[in-house]
Parts: sequence; structure tokens; C-alpha cells
Amino acid sequence: MHQAKLDVLGIGHAIVDVLANTTEDFLTGHGIAKGAMTLVDGFRAETLGRTMANSVEASGGSAANTMVGIASLGGSAGFIGKVNDDRLGKVFAEEIRKLGVLFDTPPAEGSTATASCHILITPDGQRSMNTFLGCASALVDADMAAAKVASANILFVEGYLWDTPGAKAAIRQAIAHAKAASRKVAFTLSDSFCVGRWRAEFKDLLARDIDILFANEDEAKALFETEQFDEAFQAIRKWGKTAAITRSALGSVIVEDGHVHLLNAEPVRHVIDTTGAGDQYAAGFLFGYARRLPLNICGRLAGLAAAEVISHVGPRPLVSLKTLAAHAGLI
Amino acid sequence: MHQAKLDVLGIGHAIVDVLANTTEDFLTGHGIAKGAMTLVDGFRAETLGRTMANSVEASGGSAANTMVGIASLGGSAGFIGKVNDDRLGKVFAEEIRKLGVLFDTPPAEGSTATASCHILITPDGQRSMNTFLGCASALVDADMAAAKVASANILFVEGYLWDTPGAKAAIRQAIAHAKAASRKVAFTLSDSFCVGRWRAEFKDLLARDIDILFANEDEAKALFETEQFDEAFQAIRKWGKTAAITRSALGSVIVEDGHVHLLNAEPVRHVIDTTGAGDQYAAGFLFGYARRLPLNICGRLAGLAAAEVISHVGPRPLVSLKTLAAHAGLI
Repeated sequence: MHQAKLDVLGIGHAIVDVLANTTEDFLTGHGIAKGAMTLVDGFRAETLGRTMANSVEASGGSAANTMVGIASLGGSAGFIGKVNDDRLGKVFAEEIRKLGVLFDTPPAEGSTATASCHILITPDGQRSMNTFLGCASALVDADMAAAKVASANILFVEGYLWDTPGAKAAIRQAIAHAKAASRKVAFTLSDSFCVGRWRAEFKDLLARDIDILFANEDEAKALFETEQFDEAFQAIRKWGKTAAITRSALGSVIVEDGHVHLLNAEPVRHVIDTTGAGDQYAAGFLFGYARRLPLNICGRLAGLAAAEVISHVGPRPLVSLKTLAAHAGLI
Repeated sequence: MHQAKLDVLGIGHAIVDVLANTTEDFLTGHGIAKGAMTLVDGFRAETLGRTMANSVEASGGSAANTMVGIASLGGSAGFIGKVNDDRLGKVFAEEIRKLGVLFDTPPAEGSTATASCHILITPDGQRSMNTFLGCASALVDADMAAAKVASANILFVEGYLWDTPGAKAAIRQAIAHAKAASRKVAFTLSDSFCVGRWRAEFKDLLARDIDILFANEDEAKALFETEQFDEAFQAIRKWGKTAAITRSALGSVIVEDGHVHLLNAEPVRHVIDTTGAGDQYAAGFLFGYARRLPLNICGRLAGLAAAEVISHVGPRPLVSLKTLAAHAGLI
């Protein structure tokens, strides 16, 4: 086992968000379900892209956002994700590299375009999302080289990837490489509907592979099929490894062996957009964990990163998390 | 050791609240600090009692309220507290007995009147409290007969009693009797200012005598002199016995040996008056604990009793907690 070069290596969907303000009439005219997240095909994504006026592009994707947060904290992060060699793919690659994340996954072969999420914002502030997963699921074994996976202290995998079955074998390969190199495997449940679709497989992963689990309250309750948070909490304690469970304004709960930490939510003057809260929470926690900081400090870094990202629009930090954490006396 | 006859025996200040609606002018005219709790002497209490128009009397006192809650749940509860043989003393004794609590402490000798709290409610809903502790502190060893203390599964003591030093020797006597009979000793920190005044003695009690601790978040933080709830929580876990910590809308945390339960606050449509929330939380928990119900059910009974009392004016339940608990499927 060699000394790791990276703090964390993330695997996830590489997605570019395309955002535009629009009217109620535009939604009606294009048959878009207001306020919902709808999966769309490439043709539909292309049509929307052509008709949306004054759109802005911003790279996203859950694990990618987390890696950007780790870099913002001064950590070293890498990302494995699939884009095409098209315009949006270049936007994604340039942005994530500019933000300090190592990203060298070869572009997908074939004509399937880079994943995009066309987001229409109506005057009432609601976001109607149209997600085209494109080539994001085209991850192959070759993208998960053993040496690459072993180069990071922690491998971080997003649960969303289970929705694109093609990638699953490659991800299992990456997990095997991490285990072989005695690295930790971290996993986020991503979404309570995603948990509903893949409960049995996620529980199997939990039993065999996962060392560090991220979940919000709804996801944890969905995984263990209970309405009582305390019951999900007991199940996670019984599991016995490391878990960080977020509870929005109720703060978060961190569990490791016999230890339990109860952390308050960081105060936020105005909550503007909760997109990315879980991604940045994971960033703060993983950065602290990779650096072997005490568990309660990992939790406070997580809360701080989440508080930054919900105080503005967009799922990635707008200011240096390293500076914020230093001001708070955490690093 | 004999079979206990009572679930819980409480010791506390026996106080009668005297409430009246009044005007801002009345407060100004009588020099009453608006919205505050002020300790007053007997003369002042008597003067206020004579001048307050259309007043209503209602028995109170923290541990007494808790015993009433236990009786409302269908439990058997006794109370030790000192009243005088005056009119308010008779009101207190009659009310607590009518609510099903065993109360047979002999009235105080001498002329010091029964404790009262004259509460003036201004049109803006603020409560200005004038507390006269009177003979409530005149508890003596003879009030704590060994057989009486041994008759209950749990002895419950309110921290407020430490503010009336005369009673302290008698309470220590009661604790010694409980220990000798292998009964559990429960204690509530009562108030964060009270903790500030008696921190060293409360910590000493914790180390030697207390089996079950009740505290709200502020009291727990005050006891361990920290601003971080998690640090107070770690200190309580290290202590290692049974504790129930209430966090208002954040729910409550229950600790026993290695176990931790995280309970949500019961939903309440309109919070009307939080007076007595802690008292009724303790009632629900102690009832469940005395009946050896699982720890999470003790906590849910506690939350249910607290939710009932904050949904109306006054520190004692207005409906049968037993009926509510049965409807919720908890008993």
C-alpha cells in the first residue's frame, strides 16, 4: 500500500446545467411539468437547448460538485465521469479543472451527447428540470484503473449512478480496486426515490463494501423502510461503520463505532437555493476525514460548506471554503 | 427490598399561581418589572393578592406538575412539598389530591405563608411573575420517612429546591433512603440560571447520586460550560447513566449506557404557552421508565405529554394523557 496522492476520488454523472428564466407560457407551450425533474431524451434536450433564450451554462453533477467543494477547502480531489467530446463536454471538463479537480477520464466514444439538465426558472422562482443522462453512464472498466483508484485516500461514489445500469460493473470494479489498496469507500444514497429503486442493492453494498455512508433523513428512512427517524438511526448504529446523516434545519448526526455526534445546522441568514447542500456537506466531511481531523470537526466543516452553498443560487461554492473554515477556526 | 407501591415520588416547591389580567398602568403603579420573574417577600405577595382584581388560582410547582402528569397517564404518583395550613395551602392540597396524586406532607409550622406566584398578564400577552417562596422550603427530615421514599420506584427531585438551602439536608436524606432501598433517583436541572448558581453541587450529585437526569439544551450547556450542544452531549454520554435532554423544536435526545435515541418533537398545531413543557416531558418519560417500557417509547410518551401542555395555557394537562397515549398506540 502506497501513500495516497489524492484526498478523495469521486465517481458520478458528469452533467452540465443549462439555466434560463422563462414564462409560464413557455412551459405550457413545450409541455414541461412545472417544478418537477423529468428524464428526457437527447432529441428533447437538443430542442430545449435551441429554444431557450439567454441561457447560462454551469457544470453540475452530485459527486462532481462534492469534488469541487473539497478542492475549495484546499484538499486534493479527482473526478471520474463521462462526457462526450462535444461543446458541453468541453465546458464540463474546463470548469472542473479550473476549479482544481483532477479530471482525465477519456471522452465517450460514439455520438451520444454529454449529459445536460435544462432548467427553466419561472417568475415565481420554481425550477422545472429536464435531465438527459446522455453518455454520463458510459463509464467502462478502463476508466477505473487500479492505480488511479489507489491514488486516493477515499473513493466516493454517488447512488445516482445506479440509475444508469451500464456503469454498474465499472463502479464495482473501482470499489474492488479501492478495497485491494486498503482505501475507504464512501457512498451517498443521493435521493429517496433512488433508494426506493435500488434498496436491495444499496443494502448489499452497505453490508459488503461501504465504509462511510452519506444520507439525508428521508433517504435513511427510505433505506430502512421506516417513518421514525430514530429507527433509521438505530439501524445505522447497528451497521457500525461511519455515517453522516443530514436533517436540514435539525442539523446532522454523525456515527462511528460507538461514537455519536449531534451537530447543529450552521446559521444561514437567507436560504436562497438548497441545491447542492448534500453535495457540499459531503465535501466538508470527506475533506476532514481524509485529513484525519476529529469526527466533530469533520461534521462542522460539512455544515459550514452546506451553509455556504444554500445561501446563493447554484450547487458549488462561490467563495473559498478554505478561507471560511480558517475564519471559523476549523482548519 | 419490597415491591414499590408508587411509580414515582416527587419532591419540590409547592406553589399556587395567582393569575389576573391587568393593565400596563397597574404594573407601573406597583413597580412590577414587565415580563420578568421576580422573587418577592410575604408582605409584597399579600399586597399584590389584595389588589389584583378577578384573579384565578391554579396550583403549580415543577415537580408537582410532573406528578400530576404521571397521574394523568394512569400512573401512581406521590408528592412531598410544604404548604402552610392557610387558604392557598388548602387550595394546593385539594387540587393535587383531586388530580390523583398522593399528598400527605404535614403543613408547615409557624406563620410563613404558602408559596405563591402572582402572575400579571398584560393585554400584549406578557406574563410578569412575582414569586414568594414562603414555607415551600421548610421541608424537614421527618417529611422524608424512609418507608415513604422506599414506596416509590423512582424518587424525582427538582433542582429549584437548591435555591432554598433550608430544605437541602432533608432532600439529601430522601436520596439516601432511596439509595438504601435500591430505588432510582431522578433529577431535573430546572433552569439554566439555577445551574449557574449550583453547578458544583449539581455535578457532585451527578457523580454520586443521580440515576436519571432531565435537562433542556440550555441547562445541559450551562452545566458543562460549553456553547456547543454536542460537547454537553458527549459529557453526558461519558457520565454513562440515563439522561433525557429536550431541545424544543429540535426534539429530544435520550441516552442510556451505550444507547442513544433521537426523537422528533411531536407536532403541535399552535404553541400557546410553553410553561410546563419540561415538567410534562419528565412525566411522560418517568411513567414509561417506571413501567419498564422501551427507552424510545418513554421518549415518545414524554414528547406527547409536552405537546399537550404547550397547546394551551397552564402547566398541567387539560385532557387525559392516558387517553392520548392510548390513541397514539404507546400504551
